[in-house]
Amino acid sequence: MILMNGKEYREKNIPLLKEKINKLDIQLGLAVIQVGNNPASDIYVKQKEKMALELGYKFIHKRFEENVTNEEIISFIDLLNKDNSINGIIVQLPIPEHLDVPLIINSIDYLKDVDGLTNINAGKLVLNSPTLIPCTPRGIIELMKEYKIDVDGKNVVVIGRSILVGKPIAHLLTNMNATVTLCHSHTEDLNYYTKNADIVIVAVGKKGFLTSEMVKDGVIVIDVGINRVDGKLFGDVDFDNVSKKASYITPVPGGIGPMTVYELMNNVYETYLLRNK
Amino acid sequence: MILMNGKEYREKNIPLLKEKINKLDIQLGLAVIQVGNNPASDIYVKQKEKMALELGYKFIHKRFEENVTNEEIISFIDLLNKDNSINGIIVQLPIPEHLDVPLIINSIDYLKDVDGLTNINAGKLVLNSPTLIPCTPRGIIELMKEYKIDVDGKNVVVIGRSILVGKPIAHLLTNMNATVTLCHSHTEDLNYYTKNADIVIVAVGKKGFLTSEMVKDGVIVIDVGINRVDGKLFGDVDFDNVSKKASYITPVPGGIGPMTVYELMNNVYETYLLRNK
Repeated sequence: MILMNGKEYREKNIPLLKEKINKLDIQLGLAVIQVGNNPASDIYVKQKEKMALELGYKFIHKRFEENVTNEEIISFIDLLNKDNSINGIIVQLPIPEHLDVPLIINSIDYLKDVDGLTNINAGKLVLNSPTLIPCTPRGIIELMKEYKIDVDGKNVVVIGRSILVGKPIAHLLTNMNATVTLCHSHTEDLNYYTKNADIVIVAVGKKGFLTSEMVKDGVIVIDVGINRVDGKLFGDVDFDNVSKKASYITPVPGGIGPMTVYELMNNVYETYLLRNK
Repeated sequence: MILMNGKEYREKNIPLLKEKINKLDIQLGLAVIQVGNNPASDIYVKQKEKMALELGYKFIHKRFEENVTNEEIISFIDLLNKDNSINGIIVQLPIPEHLDVPLIINSIDYLKDVDGLTNINAGKLVLNSPTLIPCTPRGIIELMKEYKIDVDGKNVVVIGRSILVGKPIAHLLTNMNATVTLCHSHTEDLNYYTKNADIVIVAVGKKGFLTSEMVKDGVIVIDVGINRVDGKLFGDVDFDNVSKKASYITPVPGGIGPMTVYELMNNVYETYLLRNK
């Protein structure tokens, strides 16, 4: 069994990204919009800030009160869209129910949409045009490449159909010639799919969801879950048992998590390339 | 075995669409852009013209020479975008290799993109926002609804990953809670997938591609193929043998084909609703 080490990948690649950034004629900038005080979001935003500053990015963290309106957020996004010192804009999800996520997200200039969540960027991803790819799927692809995992023709099962992970990774892998099955909460007989899969990608947000009975020997397992239980982090995979059958597996922590923040920084850099193509 | 009759569906629904159109305060208009003299395209454009006129739409058919440039086509599209008498614009694919399909398609105003092929509309489809859905996938969904086929939780295998059929139908069915596997030319052991499928949708453009050995008893088969051999039309399914095992199946001709043209007309009407929402 080979552990797919996202932390190591990140440590190795940050200096390379830094080098590329230092060659640019401008300072790059990232803005994160947060609503309320979701404790998980607080941690994620802190991680983003830390790495952004490490790379020499300008970093703006705007926090709105819980009862903010769509219009207030969109006005702020408009300012950021016009601000040349800001290259990437993200809205830290989830946001409160009364807000209109598609409306807010699509007010972001698609060339600053470093989460890859606007209609136009989601469409480009499906249609295989150069675009800003959502950070977690991008991290999954990069880490698989690092370990020379060839997906062409492979049976890939993705569990979870979120717009941030499940859907975009399914589309990316289809474009890379994998045969992808997108499973979710309504899937009947999930085990049938996972047992035959060469690669299983789990993003459901449930500790220990994927058990060893559900996979075949030699399977490759990508664990996107980040579940906090009693202050400890757990993935969506029953790691102790699944890792005995897997040929490759990502740990939690230290697998896809570190890749996601790194790829966000990469996307901020990517906006520069897209604009100057 | 129940034959899913697209022709009948269309005949039944044209008067209903006509009724809705007649209530509008404007005449709707459709423009079709064709490049060169592809004989199959000639037939398709004729079919579209016939039904458009039958419904009382204004119809523009613009044919460019084979050696037209991207810029010439885009200038013409710009005129159509500004023309209030035109509600829908399509570029009849395929177009010659020297032309840039994404560039041309994305010059169409997304609210006139009745083939649903612009980045923004493809993204909306994935993200489950109201949008113009590509005509063939829309026809497949409508015909399945007509026959009360419930896709929730079902194992659906789509063969072919084109932007006009395979990808959008996969995304639509995922959003309708089906478990979708998107197969294509790189899929290894295609039979494994098709044999276990509750519903198989074939869009590969090869006469008799799906054989009875590839499917299970009671399967539902949607045949999107239109293959002309010696002046006769054939689907992608070995109909004589597969129909013996199927619970529901679409014939060719008379299945999905008539649905596609009908749904294009529906989409022209839909543009009006989207603009006035």
